[in-house]
Amino acid sequence: MEGKQLVTTLWHAMEARDWPKVEELLAAGFVCVWPQSDERFDKAGFLRVNREYPGDWHIRICQVIAADMQVVSEVEVTLAGRIDRAVSFFELEAGKLTRLREFWPEPFEVPEWRRRWAL
Amino acid sequence: MEGKQLVTTLWHAMEARDWPKVEELLAAGFVCVWPQSDERFDKAGFLRVNREYPGDWHIRICQVIAADMQVVSEVEVTLAGRIDRAVSFFELEAGKLTRLREFWPEPFEVPEWRRRWAL
Repeated sequence: MEGKQLVTTLWHAMEARDWPKVEELLAAGFVCVWPQSDERFDKAGFLRVNREYPGDWHIRICQVIAADMQVVSEVEVTLAGRIDRAVSFFELEAGKLTRLREFWPEPFEVPEWRRRWAL
Repeated sequence: MEGKQLVTTLWHAMEARDWPKVEELLAAGFVCVWPQSDERFDKAGFLRVNREYPGDWHIRICQVIAADMQVVSEVEVTLAGRIDRAVSFFELEAGKLTRLREFWPEPFEVPEWRRRWAL
């Protein structure tokens, strides 16, 4: 599977709660890093956190950009009327995902000083 | 200039406050979108906001991933001892940057429920 397809398949498997499929897409040495909270998970931890993530969340893929062994995706995660957004940097090797560096940007207020220059 | 070089040159020009160079890298119809605050800027507005951005900020490029007409970068912006992070999705055309969709993820606390599964 090439990178773009691998990442698209991962998000679909997550949405379907198809954990054996998710597991199959991850390399044995897979590591996930969430830099904002400085959390790191190995393959088992990543699966566990996603399985246990509270609430009836749903994923929509916004974009997937693939370059050789790196893939970046942007997804929306809807949960109880709230929309979160994840930007995910994946690395892959031999058809499996080996590394994920993922960001969860939150909404913020527009600062007053630059309001006049926006469209 | 190819995509990776274009984006690297942009960040270096921003760091150098070389605004004529930044202007040169952006297409006439350039648009920047900050989805977290729902702000949009045209070329003039983007230049103005960056020129006026308060404080002695400094940029370090962490990674640049290029695929055809799309480039994604992750940079660190240091300002008064604080480190912010930007994830930027660029689109390009005819050697100029046409579009920027940019995220500024903030640090967050580790939720208690998943602490036991982290490395």
